[in-house]
Amino acid sequence: MKFERKDLPAGTPVVGMIGGGQLARMTQETAVALGIQLRVLAEGPTVSAAQAVADAPVGDYRDPETVRRFAAEADVVTFDHEHVPTELLHELEAAGIAVRPGPDALVHAQDKAVMRQRLDAFDAPAPAHQVVASRDDIADFAKRIGGFPIILKTTRGGYDGKGVWVAESAEDPVVDEAFAANVPILAEEKVDFVRELSAIVARSPHGQAVAYPIVESVQENGICVEVTAPAPGLAPDKAAQAQQTALRIAKELGVVGILAVEMFEARDGRLLVNELAMRPHNTGHWSIDGAVTSQFENHLRAVLDLPLGSPAARAPYTVMVNVLGGDDESTADMHYGLLHCLARDPGLKVHLYGKSVKPGRKVGHVTAYGDDLDDVRERARHAAAYLTGTIDE
Amino acid sequence: MKFERKDLPAGTPVVGMIGGGQLARMTQETAVALGIQLRVLAEGPTVSAAQAVADAPVGDYRDPETVRRFAAEADVVTFDHEHVPTELLHELEAAGIAVRPGPDALVHAQDKAVMRQRLDAFDAPAPAHQVVASRDDIADFAKRIGGFPIILKTTRGGYDGKGVWVAESAEDPVVDEAFAANVPILAEEKVDFVRELSAIVARSPHGQAVAYPIVESVQENGICVEVTAPAPGLAPDKAAQAQQTALRIAKELGVVGILAVEMFEARDGRLLVNELAMRPHNTGHWSIDGAVTSQFENHLRAVLDLPLGSPAARAPYTVMVNVLGGDDESTADMHYGLLHCLARDPGLKVHLYGKSVKPGRKVGHVTAYGDDLDDVRERARHAAAYLTGTIDE
Repeated sequence: MKFERKDLPAGTPVVGMIGGGQLARMTQETAVALGIQLRVLAEGPTVSAAQAVADAPVGDYRDPETVRRFAAEADVVTFDHEHVPTELLHELEAAGIAVRPGPDALVHAQDKAVMRQRLDAFDAPAPAHQVVASRDDIADFAKRIGGFPIILKTTRGGYDGKGVWVAESAEDPVVDEAFAANVPILAEEKVDFVRELSAIVARSPHGQAVAYPIVESVQENGICVEVTAPAPGLAPDKAAQAQQTALRIAKELGVVGILAVEMFEARDGRLLVNELAMRPHNTGHWSIDGAVTSQFENHLRAVLDLPLGSPAARAPYTVMVNVLGGDDESTADMHYGLLHCLARDPGLKVHLYGKSVKPGRKVGHVTAYGDDLDDVRERARHAAAYLTGTIDE
Repeated sequence: MKFERKDLPAGTPVVGMIGGGQLARMTQETAVALGIQLRVLAEGPTVSAAQAVADAPVGDYRDPETVRRFAAEADVVTFDHEHVPTELLHELEAAGIAVRPGPDALVHAQDKAVMRQRLDAFDAPAPAHQVVASRDDIADFAKRIGGFPIILKTTRGGYDGKGVWVAESAEDPVVDEAFAANVPILAEEKVDFVRELSAIVARSPHGQAVAYPIVESVQENGICVEVTAPAPGLAPDKAAQAQQTALRIAKELGVVGILAVEMFEARDGRLLVNELAMRPHNTGHWSIDGAVTSQFENHLRAVLDLPLGSPAARAPYTVMVNVLGGDDESTADMHYGLLHCLARDPGLKVHLYGKSVKPGRKVGHVTAYGDDLDDVRERARHAAAYLTGTIDE
């Protein structure tokens, strides 16, 4: 490491984040402000967060010795992604290293079957679900819940729409695809939903917790593309219910740090838990510019057991739109696009992740805020579309 | 350098900042967000900004070869301080390197005599002043402006109250001290002022400029300790006049980046220019949490000739108080103090600079914002006093 403890002012907390993607990069913004030394275990020497921190050793997060060595030099270990093997994290804990969230919590974000089972135990609202191992299981499940279509998901390893299928029948060819994934498969009710919501909470080791305003998220092809904070028109009792559900899950599972609970607002009025993430989450990026304390700052405060900051929104509406890599060569240089976007909208906040453009890849996001939702949304959408290359004026 | 251009996404701007203090460190927060690669030429391997960036070569900013080599790897060179020799910057410019602000502008922030002369040329409002080389000059000057006391200043190298004296007579022993500094000495009228104000503007190479709200700053022993944005009770026409003065100076001097103009609000109603700084300035730190676009972001945008962001305040009042190192051993660990401050005030924004505590040293700042000035001020003052160690509850 370039910075040993002796090189830092007395008491400087050292946080080791496993994974060097944009979440680690955005965490660095707030680490720098708070005087926290953030180190990332990077997938390669030039990944997103490695460009932004002083110490970013390259190593494989599946290799016990690499992770042990990295962890030994930090006050606390936390994550940019949820893929570190649970057993390895148990080993670190046994060796006295603070792992936050710990493996007993994290497993619920790693394994959807474990998550469903655990949430059922305290009656958290969820779509009907069942682990399936055969076409017969699938047929039985569909029969039990009133028929097809149903959702099939890999219990581990899925993200951004990967590892999720809609089956129209037990004979649907996607069933073969799902079983070919070679991990247990979870069948779920295909919820008839009005929209998707996300409840983000932060929780610290001694149990302090804060809940961000409930947001609406729009997904396309399984990728989050747009988030509006707060969710427009959501009844206050529903918003409170969603926050309480997330706070309950954080407590029951012993989460430390950020917990994101993605939910369906079903047409019949139910709020159903869809997915969990235990790290800063795409549906919380609005909070960097839109909340008193960003999800990244509260994640750092939580894992260091510092008092949490206010999650209150700073503006009536904040809209975040992801910038995805375009298909067009002309969008490869993101910074060229800035000239237009920043000139058009002096209030726009642009975030670029230091990632090369590939079609559909999340390379940044833009945020707008203000009093008028239509205006705020138009500003954010326009800038993202321009940077992505889907519009050219 | 760890990050060569080939390691960064297409079009990534590389900004080289000379000096690795807290201004460079805070610039990194916004560089990370905007996908800009910030490199600092550091005074040592562990200085404030070196802890926060991927590339921080150590070198002497007075050494031409060091600075040339550093500059050659950046799209633009800018500054954490104003001490780089003007001749060296002229050389860089002659070699085709973008130096922003350029030496022709920067000299006015380096040399107070040059600044006074230039500002007189376009009748910018200033205290009476004269370069003095002897006790007779001092006596003549005092006679011309109506008598002692007068201010003596070194024309170069002063900061945070160093290089400034109040002379009660031509025989005052401080006169010897001033002349012993071995740089030309400027005598100035001792302005009878109500308070100090600061006007911060950003200006880009093609002449776009924005003006931040005028703030009130409180100095103790020549060090800025507290800033309130906007300056309470300042008449709108006076605020506009202060902004126009700063915009005029930025234009006349060809400043690129942030220009801070410290002013006296004199008891007779005049607004008089006291000092200039051409870099993000202590009186602009409130803008990180208090404005749509921080001074650090607008400095980066300006030096890269990107469109400037809105300088508007986000809250009715924002108060920033510096955290100075305390005399007491118990305050050496700043992070310990955070537990209390953050628990007391979930809306508080704390900024620590990664600097070891020494008595009186600026090691961080705190910011509070809200609708009620008294409350906002109390929150910020309390947190700073606690972290400094002057109160313990």
